[in-house]
Amino acid sequence: CPSLKLREVASMYFTMVAAFLVILVVALQGSVPRGSDFPYKVPLDPQGLLELSWNVSYPEQAVNFQLLIRDLQFGLLFGMSDRGEFENADLAVLWSDGHNSYFGDAWSDAKGQLHMDSQQDYQLLGARRAPEGLYLLFRRAFSTCDPKDYVIEDGTVHLIYGILEKPVHSLQAINVSALHGGLQRVQLLKPNISIPQLPRDMKTMEITAPDVVIPSQETTYWCYMAELPEGFPKHHIIMYEPVVTAGNEALVHHMEVFQCAAEFDSFPHYNGPCDSKMKPDRLNYCRHVLAAWAMGAQAFYYPEEAGLAFGGPGSSRYLRLEIHYHNPLVFKGRRDSSGIRLYYTATLRPFDAGIMELGLVYTPVMAIPPGEDNFILTGYCTDKCTQLALPAAGIRIFASQLHTHLAGRKVVTVLSRDGREQQVVNADRHYSPHFQEIRMLKEVVAVFPGDELITTCTYNTEDRSRATVGGFGILEEMCVNYVHYYPQTQLELCKSAVDPGYLHRYFNLVNRFNDEEICMCPQVSVPQQFYSIPWNTFNRDVLKSLYSFAPISMHCNKSSAVRFPGEWEKQPLPSITERLRERIPRCPPAPEPHPAAPIPLNLGQLRR
Amino acid sequence: CPSLKLREVASMYFTMVAAFLVILVVALQGSVPRGSDFPYKVPLDPQGLLELSWNVSYPEQAVNFQLLIRDLQFGLLFGMSDRGEFENADLAVLWSDGHNSYFGDAWSDAKGQLHMDSQQDYQLLGARRAPEGLYLLFRRAFSTCDPKDYVIEDGTVHLIYGILEKPVHSLQAINVSALHGGLQRVQLLKPNISIPQLPRDMKTMEITAPDVVIPSQETTYWCYMAELPEGFPKHHIIMYEPVVTAGNEALVHHMEVFQCAAEFDSFPHYNGPCDSKMKPDRLNYCRHVLAAWAMGAQAFYYPEEAGLAFGGPGSSRYLRLEIHYHNPLVFKGRRDSSGIRLYYTATLRPFDAGIMELGLVYTPVMAIPPGEDNFILTGYCTDKCTQLALPAAGIRIFASQLHTHLAGRKVVTVLSRDGREQQVVNADRHYSPHFQEIRMLKEVVAVFPGDELITTCTYNTEDRSRATVGGFGILEEMCVNYVHYYPQTQLELCKSAVDPGYLHRYFNLVNRFNDEEICMCPQVSVPQQFYSIPWNTFNRDVLKSLYSFAPISMHCNKSSAVRFPGEWEKQPLPSITERLRERIPRCPPAPEPHPAAPIPLNLGQLRR
Repeated sequence: CPSLKLREVASMYFTMVAAFLVILVVALQGSVPRGSDFPYKVPLDPQGLLELSWNVSYPEQAVNFQLLIRDLQFGLLFGMSDRGEFENADLAVLWSDGHNSYFGDAWSDAKGQLHMDSQQDYQLLGARRAPEGLYLLFRRAFSTCDPKDYVIEDGTVHLIYGILEKPVHSLQAINVSALHGGLQRVQLLKPNISIPQLPRDMKTMEITAPDVVIPSQETTYWCYMAELPEGFPKHHIIMYEPVVTAGNEALVHHMEVFQCAAEFDSFPHYNGPCDSKMKPDRLNYCRHVLAAWAMGAQAFYYPEEAGLAFGGPGSSRYLRLEIHYHNPLVFKGRRDSSGIRLYYTATLRPFDAGIMELGLVYTPVMAIPPGEDNFILTGYCTDKCTQLALPAAGIRIFASQLHTHLAGRKVVTVLSRDGREQQVVNADRHYSPHFQEIRMLKEVVAVFPGDELITTCTYNTEDRSRATVGGFGILEEMCVNYVHYYPQTQLELCKSAVDPGYLHRYFNLVNRFNDEEICMCPQVSVPQQFYSIPWNTFNRDVLKSLYSFAPISMHCNKSSAVRFPGEWEKQPLPSITERLRERIPRCPPAPEPHPAAPIPLNLGQLRR
Repeated sequence: CPSLKLREVASMYFTMVAAFLVILVVALQGSVPRGSDFPYKVPLDPQGLLELSWNVSYPEQAVNFQLLIRDLQFGLLFGMSDRGEFENADLAVLWSDGHNSYFGDAWSDAKGQLHMDSQQDYQLLGARRAPEGLYLLFRRAFSTCDPKDYVIEDGTVHLIYGILEKPVHSLQAINVSALHGGLQRVQLLKPNISIPQLPRDMKTMEITAPDVVIPSQETTYWCYMAELPEGFPKHHIIMYEPVVTAGNEALVHHMEVFQCAAEFDSFPHYNGPCDSKMKPDRLNYCRHVLAAWAMGAQAFYYPEEAGLAFGGPGSSRYLRLEIHYHNPLVFKGRRDSSGIRLYYTATLRPFDAGIMELGLVYTPVMAIPPGEDNFILTGYCTDKCTQLALPAAGIRIFASQLHTHLAGRKVVTVLSRDGREQQVVNADRHYSPHFQEIRMLKEVVAVFPGDELITTCTYNTEDRSRATVGGFGILEEMCVNYVHYYPQTQLELCKSAVDPGYLHRYFNLVNRFNDEEICMCPQVSVPQQFYSIPWNTFNRDVLKSLYSFAPISMHCNKSSAVRFPGEWEKQPLPSITERLRERIPRCPPAPEPHPAAPIPLNLGQLRR
């Protein structure tokens, strides 16, 4: 053996690997995949004919997939792409020419045409027929280092599927754009966190809208006041989940339960739009977040050592439910009783939990020019604010919910200390405003007084012809990270916006540079000024320069109306002297170059 | 064998690889490396005690090194770093603890401390004692995909070496900052081009300065007029080389031979500084480049099908030699007779060759703010100019010389067609103003009418406290690519600069934004205006935005004084819709993770 040449050893090695794979495929033909091996499950299509289950192996940096195909025709495409598009996608393909079936790793080009991947990274583990359909088992490393492959990252993954309704003679004959298919968003890389044990004395309470008629307009924030029983003692909310009226899943965009300020003995009952003139002003004092849910999220569990306090002395009995109805098709007369179901216990946990808003203040001074494919806005929670508001022992962030409106594409919050980036709090580089889950973090993040939390949002406004300003409307934008943490502090809002005086100088500057009429008339609103800018790369770039230079106005608030004492205007921008390094993906050992070939499968004839 | 588990096969495989390597090292101990295997050679140190030879294998994407150590003490460090610094370097280390010797792949951190590389990529091929010293043979892939490793790219590579003068007990005990060592710049990845056959009737001619006393000032451009014999017929220059007076190697920064305009029958003799008031104005008509050399370059050969025409009817007999003396230590009375030796033939080759200047016009309107670590300026050769000046069959660029002054760090020229980048003409991402070779291109680049040539220069001004403007002084900057091509055209200069009117708007804008006194007084020069800007990130970013937005003034010139007919002011910036993809480096197969260990060598005791 030691006299073998290197080349021979390598060749022997790969022959064995190949033999091993064949044995594995054959062996798995008969084995039964156990459901418990794949804890996460989601239907891919609206009819539930395709069901994906999966598990994640962090030590191996790979995802194992089990795909149940209930009604197999002549094959199936399953894969991933940046935002769910069928072009430039990374695909596992099962196809039949009418006689034989094959499996292969492919990619689609910018025109939707399929190509065999030079490196086969969707690794087939087995295929099995069962009464309910065909099970396909396969595996994918998070990162394959094949430039044609999608990198599976934390955060949202856009899964796509396509049905082959006719036999195909080769993979190259398939164009995905012509197929029946769809997309499903999931968080593939679920954190390795076990659901905490729930106490025996747990009770539930539903805070739901009382048969509201959803207004026939695109955007409605609905406000409904609820009340805890009199003398309701302090409890801990340890879990909550959405209650969405069947049929309204696409209309209920997000919901929040706020607790009112304790300094008022009573609050008026109200059930109507939040922006109505009829809404009592006192409702503005109901801004302490108890629960927040947005489209796509599941039930939310607190960590075992913390719960969200409500009830008892010093805590208002009054709750405000706010529902954001997004009704772009302007349905009329749709009735809704959605809301949130709280699970709570009288057996208090060691710590009270809280929710804090990071990112940008809802103000038009933060705007995105039209026609941009990735414009970045940044919101700061400064050292000065955390110094004042956080306890010396710090806080622990355990969950996070990222939030933007329709133009949002990425959201990242980074923790910085003494100007040096320490760690990512939460990042979603494939963020979708249609999939705003509250996500438990993989690692709890400790934040100490003097730390900075910097939230950057990336927007795409390629489909817009005028500037998008910050604000509450669905066509205005937000950049928010709701972080869930313990122990609770008074700090509810730690957000920023550019100093309005500097923005005014910007308007003057671009008007002069572009030889436009100079309008410094104070009666023109900031949105109007943004709308009237003749956008070009110079005006765009100078706005970027302004946002990364001008001092900021900080909202370091106990509630949205009450600031911590101190000077919060014209604050210096936090500076970063050391950035986090992009992690270089670990790649599986690269095999010797050999022609990529489909794996034949013995599935019998697929369709009569 | 087929019943072996995957893990066992892999383990067997790596055992064999290791065994194979040991055998190889032992086997090579006795073999004699042949000189012809390593065609490129350079001394690393001023005394010539370390001599590096190498060859390049493009099929294997690797460099083979042979290092001759004439006076080995207790070991040696050899490696590469971004700009020749000892910190953050990638190093092959030979070290001895006084008894045994070891070889390993290491890296130095930001403090100069050595660490063993987790992946051993300097691959030892052999070591051999000879009468002249110790030969070490080793190999490095261009790219290893180890993030601690230097990527060997086209262009300049900064090689470093360090001498171990005492025994060391481990690699970790070495700090490179404390060692005696130095740096040598080379182009490691020499193109695979053979030197063309030289004709038998080749003659030589020296155009040299007549015993000039170098002025005792930092920057001098010296002008000397020479004359061809009367009736000198048309010849082709097929090669030239520098003639540098011994001892003045560090003072002669670059030299050019220009031919004068044919429309004048005679030119005055002159021998003096180019900027002297005594210099006859007519010398400004001597701007047709015949030969250009700069510090670090070797002899220059024309491709077999082309030569540079001179002599004959329609060609002036008058030549101007221009020497840029860089004398920062202000030596007095230093005499110099440097110049250029031309090799020429009367047997004309099929094509006349030419030299064209790409990049930026020498004007202060293109400036770099102080304190920048990588500020980019871009010069354009537009489609309008190539449309007018190039023949329908296009031109072939076969060589290129990149040129900046002291702040230059990178220079790249890209060919773009219809807004889509096609290929890199020449790129040096580790460019040094102290190593300005004329480089033969790996591939000849065809340029057609309507193509665009875009040259970007990256500057570092971290050591400067005021703006660096464009100009001729060594502390002013240039961004030039002299491309050598055939067949010759009338186009000698295809360069750009920002429109001065837009720059004026910029000065007004930043003055207003910063609430500075507004000086629009026309008597203040552009450099003075740049010097008076209070630099901050906003003013810097807006200057960047201006340069990537404002229209340009084009120099589409037959010679530096004569433009092609047409409108060349306020031209639109070429726009790029499709960029060249960064090439993803091919990596060698990643071995299973195993502890990195030094390789013991049997060299006997190194020092008594």
